[in-house]
Amino acid sequence: MTDEFPGKVEMSSEKYDRGMKKFREIDGKGGLRAVEYLEDMVPEIGRYLIEYPFGDIYSRPGLDIRTRELAAIAAMAAMGGCDPQLRVHIHAALNNGATRQEVIEVVLQMSVYAGFPKAINALYTVKDILDKRDSKEKEE
Amino acid sequence: MTDEFPGKVEMSSEKYDRGMKKFREIDGKGGLRAVEYLEDMVPEIGRYLIEYPFGDIYSRPGLDIRTRELAAIAAMAAMGGCDPQLRVHIHAALNNGATRQEVIEVVLQMSVYAGFPKAINALYTVKDILDKRDSKEKEE
Amino acid sequence: MTDEFPGKVEMSSEKYDRGMKKFREIDGKGGLRAVEYLEDMVPEIGRYLIEYPFGDIYSRPGLDIRTRELAAIAAMAAMGGCDPQLRVHIHAALNNGATRQEVIEVVLQMSVYAGFPKAINALYTVKDILDKRDSKEKEE
Amino acid sequence: MTDEFPGKVEMSSEKYDRGMKKFREIDGKGGLRAVEYLEDMVPEIGRYLIEYPFGDIYSRPGLDIRTRELAAIAAMAAMGGCDPQLRVHIHAALNNGATRQEVIEVVLQMSVYAGFPKAINALYTVKDILDKRDSKEKEE
Amino acid sequence: MTDEFPGKVEMSSEKYDRGMKKFREIDGKGGLRAVEYLEDMVPEIGRYLIEYPFGDIYSRPGLDIRTRELAAIAAMAAMGGCDPQLRVHIHAALNNGATRQEVIEVVLQMSVYAGFPKAINALYTVKDILDKRDSKEKEE
Amino acid sequence: MTDEFPGKVEMSSEKYDRGMKKFREIDGKGGLRAVEYLEDMVPEIGRYLIEYPFGDIYSRPGLDIRTRELAAIAAMAAMGGCDPQLRVHIHAALNNGATRQEVIEVVLQMSVYAGFPKAINALYTVKDILDKRDSKEKEE
Repeated sequence: MTDEFPGKVEMSSEKYDRGMKKFREIDGKGGLRAVEYLEDMVPEIGRYLIEYPFGDIYSRPGLDIRTRELAAIAAMAAMGGCDPQLRVHIHAALNNGATRQEVIEVVLQMSVYAGFPKAINALYTVKDILDKRDSKEKEE
Repeated sequence: MTDEFPGKVEMSSEKYDRGMKKFREIDGKGGLRAVEYLEDMVPEIGRYLIEYPFGDIYSRPGLDIRTRELAAIAAMAAMGGCDPQLRVHIHAALNNGATRQEVIEVVLQMSVYAGFPKAINALYTVKDILDKRDSKEKEE
Repeated sequence: MTDEFPGKVEMSSEKYDRGMKKFREIDGKGGLRAVEYLEDMVPEIGRYLIEYPFGDIYSRPGLDIRTRELAAIAAMAAMGGCDPQLRVHIHAALNNGATRQEVIEVVLQMSVYAGFPKAINALYTVKDILDKRDSKEKEE
Repeated sequence: MTDEFPGKVEMSSEKYDRGMKKFREIDGKGGLRAVEYLEDMVPEIGRYLIEYPFGDIYSRPGLDIRTRELAAIAAMAAMGGCDPQLRVHIHAALNNGATRQEVIEVVLQMSVYAGFPKAINALYTVKDILDKRDSKEKEE
Repeated sequence: MTDEFPGKVEMSSEKYDRGMKKFREIDGKGGLRAVEYLEDMVPEIGRYLIEYPFGDIYSRPGLDIRTRELAAIAAMAAMGGCDPQLRVHIHAALNNGATRQEVIEVVLQMSVYAGFPKAINALYTVKDILDKRDSKEKEE
Repeated sequence: MTDEFPGKVEMSSEKYDRGMKKFREIDGKGGLRAVEYLEDMVPEIGRYLIEYPFGDIYSRPGLDIRTRELAAIAAMAAMGGCDPQLRVHIHAALNNGATRQEVIEVVLQMSVYAGFPKAINALYTVKDILDKRDSKEKEE
């Protein structure tokens, strides 16, 4: 994917540039690819997902990215019904300084606040991602 | 409150002792006081809240207490409807190494995952707690 | 309150009559009083709350009212955010053969499926109702 | 309240200006007042609530404001736990071409999708607002 | 599918007839087909889904069907976990005067109230339906 | 599966033994098998799922297992997003004295409290399980 989103009106804005820079720091490549599929319906969707979440929120000082990603995982696991986004944030946490154990611990802890079913369901997602990362490493 | 819970059958268990020790490290005094009110209905309630959450989960290595408390705040804010527990965990986060800014950041970030209403409602709770802690400090 | 709802068009229907009969068996007096307040906005509101929930669902054979009320309490406690309705169903359970202990047990059990905060919040509601019923009994 | 938010860095941006213009069209005065209270914690909060929700989303063509506000009411009522925001959007709907009956109908309809408790709770909020608007009109 | 539901006891009722008429106006054929599968367990299920939702609620004056369907979409998208029903209501909205853009806008707007994950997940469902309707049109 | 969980430190505890005994009474074989898959990430997961839910909660007197399982089904159906756990509890209810009709009734009743979509979705899960149990019986 390129930086070329439709709906470029404000592409020169500081917020978009700052957001895209932050987004790349955190998610590397990939990440927005899933949203490209929605661009014929909402051409601005990539811009929306970059500007407020990354240009505004993730660019704020006062909380490190590793903790932000673990907090995102906590929220997704506790709310349920966000499996694709949970996956993105598990990868992002692991790519930004969180250990595998930390990801597991945050999800397991959700059994206390959101009940065992939500925690167990999210642990399955963690397991699936860790297994895929393992088999990818072996290939290399 | 004392350690004297009704339902002492397993009070000598390692898990309860470990949980109570961890609980005191994290919450200091207070904390369980709110639950004492429920003990005539469920005499074991204090034990339940100590053993699994603190004796099992919070006693696990692999994730520091500050991050655990910020993850708890993320979950409570994102789910909504847990104001008393959100309050307990905001205090616990601040008492275990999280800065005020970190607490604010985690809650604000929930606007991305759970929408603005849940995030704004939880920011009001944060504000209320910070104000109370300020006026308490001034008194001292 | 009387049976005189506005929107009587179908008041002679079997469903409404059956529903009102079932409703009176379960809730006695009271119950719909809270909804009367909404009748200037939705004159049919009382009829809607009688016909489908009581005329259709609660009138079905195959599950006793005590279990239906305990299931309602489980759902309200687990979902959260339904305090007025949780109260109605706690009274209804107690008035239809459930013991106080059974109500407490169902709510406590929700800690496993919906997390401790939702269960604790609902236990406070149970406590409040049991205390009020106690002081009412003493007066008599 | 004035347009003078702290965190003015991007205040000259097209998005903020467009958002503030749209916000004023929809909410008139009031509205952001509630958020001012949070500005010592998050000086940018007003800007965040203007830029993405109003500068981006509400400024999009393709859906009229009346329908947008009724959709917001549907979502708040169905999710529950957003009473302050539900209030803001009921006022906004009424101020932007929705009739009282339309607001009532949308909320009542939520009984089908989100259950009677959520719908009844939100109808109480509607009732409270309509009563206040009535007594305000009488005063004038 | 025929009108022949089991559990016909009240089939001659005004409510059922009115509901079925309204249902056909809105959903055309299809629609209830999915529920037929459940009739050996709950023979009355089709009647329940016709009478209260269509015979009572959707038959009320005061809100047009296009807006009712957009409100239903808003609620489903914001709550999450209702994909089959979201699909039914997207079709119903498009068949009752809502434009594709209006459906997209309502769902996108949910990012503000319910967070980006719920909105993105529902946008995928919208996309899938629009693509299927396109390829169906081409075939014809 | 055997009783041989990793993380045996407290395996000799009364709570674990009592929990495992209760678990076997209720779920027979199977049940924990799904969780074994998670043991390389959280070796203690089986112990956690036995000790608090079964050793503490399900072992409490004051509510029969049949009602506990129907309450669990009510909660899962009403919350949504817990399909694997809903399945486990439908089997457990049927294996502990609940009739098929009782399971169906509890789920159908959730349409009143949690809306039609959640109830319909859970009825599909009930249907799938009943069909599988039927075809299994025929084989035997």
